[in-house]
Amino acid sequence: MIPRYTRPEMAAIWSPENKYRIWFEIEAHATDKLAELGVVPADAAKAVWKAKDKTFDVARIDEIEAEVKHDVIAFLTHLAELVGEEARFVHQGLTSSDVLDTCLAVQMRDAADLLLEGMDRVLAALKTRAMEHKYTACIGRSHGIHAEPTTMGLKFARFYAEFARNRDRLVRARDEVATCAISGAIGTFANVDPSVEEHVASKMGLSVEPISTQVIPRDRHANYFAVLGLIASAIENIAIEVRHLQRSEVREAQEYFSPGQKGSSAMPHKRNPILTENLTGQARLVRMAVVPAMENIALWHERDISHSSVERGIGPDSTVHLDFALHRTAGMIEKLIVHEDRCRENLEAYGGIHNSQRVLLALTQAGASREDGYRLVQRNGMKTWDEGGRLVDHLKADADVRGFLSDEQIETCFDEGYHFKHVDTIFKRVFGE
Amino acid sequence: MIPRYTRPEMAAIWSPENKYRIWFEIEAHATDKLAELGVVPADAAKAVWKAKDKTFDVARIDEIEAEVKHDVIAFLTHLAELVGEEARFVHQGLTSSDVLDTCLAVQMRDAADLLLEGMDRVLAALKTRAMEHKYTACIGRSHGIHAEPTTMGLKFARFYAEFARNRDRLVRARDEVATCAISGAIGTFANVDPSVEEHVASKMGLSVEPISTQVIPRDRHANYFAVLGLIASAIENIAIEVRHLQRSEVREAQEYFSPGQKGSSAMPHKRNPILTENLTGQARLVRMAVVPAMENIALWHERDISHSSVERGIGPDSTVHLDFALHRTAGMIEKLIVHEDRCRENLEAYGGIHNSQRVLLALTQAGASREDGYRLVQRNGMKTWDEGGRLVDHLKADADVRGFLSDEQIETCFDEGYHFKHVDTIFKRVFGE
Amino acid sequence: MIPRYTRPEMAAIWSPENKYRIWFEIEAHATDKLAELGVVPADAAKAVWKAKDKTFDVARIDEIEAEVKHDVIAFLTHLAELVGEEARFVHQGLTSSDVLDTCLAVQMRDAADLLLEGMDRVLAALKTRAMEHKYTACIGRSHGIHAEPTTMGLKFARFYAEFARNRDRLVRARDEVATCAISGAIGTFANVDPSVEEHVASKMGLSVEPISTQVIPRDRHANYFAVLGLIASAIENIAIEVRHLQRSEVREAQEYFSPGQKGSSAMPHKRNPILTENLTGQARLVRMAVVPAMENIALWHERDISHSSVERGIGPDSTVHLDFALHRTAGMIEKLIVHEDRCRENLEAYGGIHNSQRVLLALTQAGASREDGYRLVQRNGMKTWDEGGRLVDHLKADADVRGFLSDEQIETCFDEGYHFKHVDTIFKRVFGE
Amino acid sequence: MIPRYTRPEMAAIWSPENKYRIWFEIEAHATDKLAELGVVPADAAKAVWKAKDKTFDVARIDEIEAEVKHDVIAFLTHLAELVGEEARFVHQGLTSSDVLDTCLAVQMRDAADLLLEGMDRVLAALKTRAMEHKYTACIGRSHGIHAEPTTMGLKFARFYAEFARNRDRLVRARDEVATCAISGAIGTFANVDPSVEEHVASKMGLSVEPISTQVIPRDRHANYFAVLGLIASAIENIAIEVRHLQRSEVREAQEYFSPGQKGSSAMPHKRNPILTENLTGQARLVRMAVVPAMENIALWHERDISHSSVERGIGPDSTVHLDFALHRTAGMIEKLIVHEDRCRENLEAYGGIHNSQRVLLALTQAGASREDGYRLVQRNGMKTWDEGGRLVDHLKADADVRGFLSDEQIETCFDEGYHFKHVDTIFKRVFGE
Repeated sequence: MIPRYTRPEMAAIWSPENKYRIWFEIEAHATDKLAELGVVPADAAKAVWKAKDKTFDVARIDEIEAEVKHDVIAFLTHLAELVGEEARFVHQGLTSSDVLDTCLAVQMRDAADLLLEGMDRVLAALKTRAMEHKYTACIGRSHGIHAEPTTMGLKFARFYAEFARNRDRLVRARDEVATCAISGAIGTFANVDPSVEEHVASKMGLSVEPISTQVIPRDRHANYFAVLGLIASAIENIAIEVRHLQRSEVREAQEYFSPGQKGSSAMPHKRNPILTENLTGQARLVRMAVVPAMENIALWHERDISHSSVERGIGPDSTVHLDFALHRTAGMIEKLIVHEDRCRENLEAYGGIHNSQRVLLALTQAGASREDGYRLVQRNGMKTWDEGGRLVDHLKADADVRGFLSDEQIETCFDEGYHFKHVDTIFKRVFGE
Repeated sequence: MIPRYTRPEMAAIWSPENKYRIWFEIEAHATDKLAELGVVPADAAKAVWKAKDKTFDVARIDEIEAEVKHDVIAFLTHLAELVGEEARFVHQGLTSSDVLDTCLAVQMRDAADLLLEGMDRVLAALKTRAMEHKYTACIGRSHGIHAEPTTMGLKFARFYAEFARNRDRLVRARDEVATCAISGAIGTFANVDPSVEEHVASKMGLSVEPISTQVIPRDRHANYFAVLGLIASAIENIAIEVRHLQRSEVREAQEYFSPGQKGSSAMPHKRNPILTENLTGQARLVRMAVVPAMENIALWHERDISHSSVERGIGPDSTVHLDFALHRTAGMIEKLIVHEDRCRENLEAYGGIHNSQRVLLALTQAGASREDGYRLVQRNGMKTWDEGGRLVDHLKADADVRGFLSDEQIETCFDEGYHFKHVDTIFKRVFGE
Repeated sequence: MIPRYTRPEMAAIWSPENKYRIWFEIEAHATDKLAELGVVPADAAKAVWKAKDKTFDVARIDEIEAEVKHDVIAFLTHLAELVGEEARFVHQGLTSSDVLDTCLAVQMRDAADLLLEGMDRVLAALKTRAMEHKYTACIGRSHGIHAEPTTMGLKFARFYAEFARNRDRLVRARDEVATCAISGAIGTFANVDPSVEEHVASKMGLSVEPISTQVIPRDRHANYFAVLGLIASAIENIAIEVRHLQRSEVREAQEYFSPGQKGSSAMPHKRNPILTENLTGQARLVRMAVVPAMENIALWHERDISHSSVERGIGPDSTVHLDFALHRTAGMIEKLIVHEDRCRENLEAYGGIHNSQRVLLALTQAGASREDGYRLVQRNGMKTWDEGGRLVDHLKADADVRGFLSDEQIETCFDEGYHFKHVDTIFKRVFGE
Repeated sequence: MIPRYTRPEMAAIWSPENKYRIWFEIEAHATDKLAELGVVPADAAKAVWKAKDKTFDVARIDEIEAEVKHDVIAFLTHLAELVGEEARFVHQGLTSSDVLDTCLAVQMRDAADLLLEGMDRVLAALKTRAMEHKYTACIGRSHGIHAEPTTMGLKFARFYAEFARNRDRLVRARDEVATCAISGAIGTFANVDPSVEEHVASKMGLSVEPISTQVIPRDRHANYFAVLGLIASAIENIAIEVRHLQRSEVREAQEYFSPGQKGSSAMPHKRNPILTENLTGQARLVRMAVVPAMENIALWHERDISHSSVERGIGPDSTVHLDFALHRTAGMIEKLIVHEDRCRENLEAYGGIHNSQRVLLALTQAGASREDGYRLVQRNGMKTWDEGGRLVDHLKADADVRGFLSDEQIETCFDEGYHFKHVDTIFKRVFGE
């Protein structure tokens, strides 16, 4: 975790305090069921809950762990310090991984829920800005080169659609990773009844892992990190667009710059898209977890522990970075300044030659052969390009063109409405309204 | 594509012949709708279908492309050679990417369908072998070290469960990538009515892309390649297990070796797990497409063409390799030789000390203090380890142990049924039966 | 290999014909030494060389391999068909991997040599264009925002320096991978004397692998692919720069567009940077081999064959793509059109406010307090930004400024020479001249 | 950084305190040179050094940064608090990146030096153990299957050779990344003389960056992270070997287990290779930085800041993890328990049939036809495999074999010295002694 890219809400999920709280809940619920099954005394199960409102002393647990070199034993020892003698019935028949892996499932689920909040904020921002700029005309570009008109609203709308797809993916990945395994050392339930697993799963809001070994299968986690990689790439997608729109030569949009923000008031042009540049890098940080998460899948036999150090790294880091990046993205979009005048200037920078194709169509429909039409369009396009002026005017001044088209017909070819007549259709598809 | 790792069924999907056939269908259906809308003559639309049963001449199209340097124009020119004059109405208002991207969607969908067949074969093989070896006892291992008994059937069953999850993921990824975009140069439908897109989508078995730019958004493709990466990793998971089971010292399983297979009949021990080693490598080949597919998402503005060369590589390669790997995996599992005798030998290699925990439990339940119980188990465990023999016999010969447990009670601790009593529960969860 | 991204020179290195030719040389040289050692008859060694000028029949070898299921045996059988009975002394004491791995070393070395040719062409092009545009002024940008003046030559020069570093890295990686191992089944030279290895190494232009197992250690190969990844990223670096320079709003440079090139003559603005977009994608294709090559390093014990399928893919693909990309890069640079007028226009687009800092410095040196200086610069900067015109003129018209600086002194602040006075120093560092 | 995988020595390099100390040195040396050039007063340069032995107050700098939102300005403000008024001459003509990038170079160089110490410890341990076990016989394995004898010493020796290669690579990567750039906002030295860069470089023990933009080119850093990935993979290579050797069925080696280490004294077989499993995961953590580091190379124009957040993550994390992993690897090797008896048992587990090839050779040399020889070896090999016993005995009892070979000649085929006669040659190559 890099402090400056960490929101406390996500950091809290991965804190030792939270981890021990989850461990406690898993153990306490398991002990309840074990008591019901008659495996441990009912009093013991009741006694365990005395720790419910207590805070686990992380330093104390660390101290014990330094001695016994086993994290779960250290925790259980400390639990006994809190609730007394009856703690010895806790963890009966369980394996450390039962607790660790189920805890990780809870943390990843809760992290996903927090990420979904961030995504919803991004989605809301994108929708608002899409509606606001539904018909803000600007030039569309392929290959970085001017092509045909589009609208700023369509840009926001397509990012919205991508985020909505990613939201669905994250909901599924969240559900897939939220499983509970309490199945013992090798997953056979030799020393613990499957009903304990069912009980704990139900209490922790998880589903039951149908078949585990010592651990929950790692394809669930890899799938989750892959979806984080997709979301990170969607953020990169937005970031690259904004960085382009903010370049000095384009200036169609600009990250918000607070009036008090120091640095370059002597150089009013020096407004850097630092948020989106930063987001571009953060996307790489999140994406880099995808491959190691997949490498974690093939464990040896019923488990080896090679995945563990990887997850200690990428578990917190990927979710923390993505959580931060989502809110930075949302804030950036909410406040993004759209320079409509610059959109217009760029749109018209080439004298309207992006309408050439349409003029050609009009000419052929008016009876010109395709070859003639092409020649006429081309010579006026070149004139616009070389000498400046507007294509519409050059066409009107061209007697050969006028042989086919009236002034009004020529002007119709430059009607922006032609390009935007289906914007509403697209918006209905994306936003359902 | 590497010939030896290529099945013709998958290669066919990516062949130029198939690509042109799909292009043709897209163009022909689009022209139908354009005729219905009155944009092109009805006769022209009808004429186009004359090419339906003809084979497109790839060499001829290449020849034209070498001249005009544009693949779609080359195709259309050749189409005109096949159906005549009316071909000039084809592609009206469409952009090359409309055809290219919709074609890619068809190819990726068809590739997914073929992969699903491969997965089904793997699933069937895993289920058959799981049922066959439901109660074939073997030692379970954590960290590569003997832990508690499990069954060979449970190994197959967990791979089955992982493959079943991946199957669901692939079905979703397939559906997500199977969209049709016919929306023009910048995605605004300026020159083509959205109903054309709807018509072609319906005819090609695709859903409509709600919002495209010049291209279909690349998160759909990245998601698809990420799922291929998960499936490849699941294959690696199986491969690593089999390679371990086949090692000289373990020999619990062995890839089938045909009687005629040459090479090492003088050294009967030399049966190499070359299929699964190969599959381990193939998994890496498939997985390496995940990151570039995600890098493809952030295109500049309404599209740049950087994704294209990447997809020319990973599109065919990843699906071809995975298709091959799935069938190799299935064949390997179908014929895998399970050495039940070796499973038994390994299980009992350490004199049954994997039952130590259970003996300890029995001792404490019989009234021994935890400390005493531990001491008794430990000294007999060490004896077994140092001197050989079976733990059960050493325990029976230990007067202190007998002070707590009868011969029968001691033997009960070594009952394998204890470990396998929930195998059926797990199988019901996994196979629903 | 993707045909359109393949140069025949590189494809030839990976062709089966070339592979068999290398195998032959390795076997023939080894047999020479074995004869010298008295292990095989001298006549046999001599006889083998009869195949020197013959072409190996790939189809025939494939046919044999289909039967014996072993590539090296198939080759040796065919060799016997060519040279007769004496061929049975070939390969005495050798292991298949001795031949396969040494052959791969030769192929990777030769591929590196071909790549070095491509790099040299890129370097030459970059140097030429750097010299040509050493003082072609243009605006330098940080964060995509105008900063201070620089020159087009400096852009070429920094790419040159990066390529020169990568060239050194490739030379080293080439030398590191060019080792010969003929050490038998497990690397102990049990059945073959080390002098055979030394002889073959010397004849094939390789160094001796100091310690091998059955195979040459894979860190050598991984290092090689990592360097290819660096070179690919350097290409991406150039490609991104050119794509930016060619955007419609920037237009400082443009990929060469042949007069006859079809497509958009009606839209003269539509010159797409498709070469560099394509190169951006190719960089991803090459880079994706880095991680699997590193995953290949940790083989099981004295070798497993998991690396082999990976190398069948990435060996040819990465070198073929990079070879193609290098020549495409070189050709693109050689012909790149630099629009000096547009460089000038962009440089002056903001009325010279990029000189603000220097004016501030001049004011404080002339006695203004830092606060006053800042205020004066800021108000004229804002005026230029809001109202247009040139900063130099606004400053001259500002009485308060003139209280500190004469017209000449003001103009000095706008002297471009100030920015370019060390260009020659940098060029000397980079080009040594 | 994950506390449990962090050594304080490496953490210190990346601490804010160390960063500010380096910033101070860069600024102070630069000011010295600026004074010499007459750009700033000599007294000012002298005054700056007053901060030399002071500790920078990180909390205070954070406080200022929260206000001014610029890390270098915050630092300079705090510097003024320490040394007084003269601090305003510091940083004259410099750009923030001059300080940040040169500081990063120092940190990466120092991190490399610390990593080299770790590598030297690994190398020393490997050499010691190689010498110790130079002739400890064990079975060599290809494909996980017994092949021919080798020695434990050769295993250590090949890891030594790989580490030695990686050491050379790291030394080069260290030198390549250790450059100083003080070249101003766009790399043109417009506001700062190149001699300042030369002076600071010399004082900081760096070389001069021949051509920078606003930043040092990122191929240097990517190359560095790629080498870390290679070293991590070398650690994985060792880790996989040890994990295999420690498996229950192999037990040729074992990670040291301290007498007091709790957990499984009742199960003496339960010694888990947790260090090497952990190292396997750490290798993935280090390796995952390679691709983002390469993605960082292609910055926009003269710099964008997308690389920065990536480096804030991977800079500390990769070096910290690798540093920890190196020392864990070294400690593991130093104390690794080699079970020579188990090596012997495994070597002889198959009755010596790994000598089959050699027997065949002896038979043919004694006059048997290849076909007859093969048949004789095969039938005795199968007998050994099926019925047990030793191949040597079966051969001696076979009258047909004895027709060709005497007892002595048969026994010679089983002489281990045959396999180890070149061990010394290999050791001389690897260790030069």
